[in-house]
Amino acid sequence: MPAADVKVIFFDVFGTVVDWRSSLTRLLQEFGREEEIRADWPAFLAAWKAGYRPAMDAVISGARPYFNLDEMYLERMNQVLDEFGLERLSETQKRKILHLWLKIDPWPDAVEGLTRLAKKYVLVTLSNGSFAWLTAIAKHGRLPFDAILTAENAEVYKPHPRAYLTAIRLMGMEKTPERCMLTACHNYDLAAARSHGMKTAFLPRKEYGPDQEADQAPESDWDVVANELIGVAEAMGC
Amino acid sequence: MPAADVKVIFFDVFGTVVDWRSSLTRLLQEFGREEEIRADWPAFLAAWKAGYRPAMDAVISGARPYFNLDEMYLERMNQVLDEFGLERLSETQKRKILHLWLKIDPWPDAVEGLTRLAKKYVLVTLSNGSFAWLTAIAKHGRLPFDAILTAENAEVYKPHPRAYLTAIRLMGMEKTPERCMLTACHNYDLAAARSHGMKTAFLPRKEYGPDQEADQAPESDWDVVANELIGVAEAMGC
Repeated sequence: MPAADVKVIFFDVFGTVVDWRSSLTRLLQEFGREEEIRADWPAFLAAWKAGYRPAMDAVISGARPYFNLDEMYLERMNQVLDEFGLERLSETQKRKILHLWLKIDPWPDAVEGLTRLAKKYVLVTLSNGSFAWLTAIAKHGRLPFDAILTAENAEVYKPHPRAYLTAIRLMGMEKTPERCMLTACHNYDLAAARSHGMKTAFLPRKEYGPDQEADQAPESDWDVVANELIGVAEAMGC
Repeated sequence: MPAADVKVIFFDVFGTVVDWRSSLTRLLQEFGREEEIRADWPAFLAAWKAGYRPAMDAVISGARPYFNLDEMYLERMNQVLDEFGLERLSETQKRKILHLWLKIDPWPDAVEGLTRLAKKYVLVTLSNGSFAWLTAIAKHGRLPFDAILTAENAEVYKPHPRAYLTAIRLMGMEKTPERCMLTACHNYDLAAARSHGMKTAFLPRKEYGPDQEADQAPESDWDVVANELIGVAEAMGC
């Protein structure tokens, strides 16, 4: 079995465990119907989400002090609303839209895959989301994580080293990082984890939709390469 | 209902949720039988645990830099071993004893009380234990916490303000601390929580055994006073 000594499995969450795009597309369309607001919601979502990587990189480079993902998505929403004819939303409506992130659903394989893995391993999130959002998303999806950790615990974003090293330290694994594994659908995340001594598990996801081409194949010899989280569970002997 | 607007319930863990003394007494006696080592295990446990408050206070006062509870209990064990004729334990045996903390059991009412509360509230630990230990203890006891937070996330110990303020901030409740409640069997912990705007729930426990006199009654008008965690659940409408 690959990674036989692993004790703690960390999980990237957005994309890897939860299907944010399908969930938010549906939730935004429901919001539009309820509030009688017409907009190109999929295009709005794409523009909204496009603020993610630049904001992360600005924090990682030190160009901006740390601010959490809730604040980032509120800021970015305000930047793109007028592009979609949504500049007249009330503050209450903006809050409602922001908090749709708390209701995103897991991929269909996630609960079974994690439940099987939880019998043998300690399962912990390692996401760029805020601590409170991740707690809410895990509870909403009934995801059997044993603990929540995010970039907010290190006040920086992945792939900055401190995001991984803080998680390893809080799990008491500083002297044995090779007994930690990161499971993710993004090659860059696994490359960073490996550089800190962690094991790695890759699974491809179509988080950006059926036409996604990035991250559909492993870009290195990751310790586990599997389909969906059930495949990761099987590879890990669960 | 008291504290009707509460969203997040924090829990002290040692004493409040888990019965460390009965569990460790039994586990130490089992260890002694397996390793054929005779000792007055209840007295050893009392001396071992007696290092707790002085070490916490040294960190809170700044006399010592933060070190986590695992390290504290290892250090304290080494200080008291010879008093109990245990100075010849091997390093492996010492590790085994230290890690008995990971196998302590919840009080009989804990799983039911928490399970009922989890249907309506977000449940989060707020313990002086290390993050890794609390994760392990929650998993061992099948305690349905939604997230683990401990003093280690603030690198200081309760009742230092930063321990509470960090937990409130990580749960995204900085602007509404009154929507957080601390549940604890120690009056001092609740007094600190209240001073930061949190709601409070008290339940008496006999964590030090049947003769315990401290903390058997509320020392202030806490928002909830109940028997066991099932009583807290009932008081909170669950």
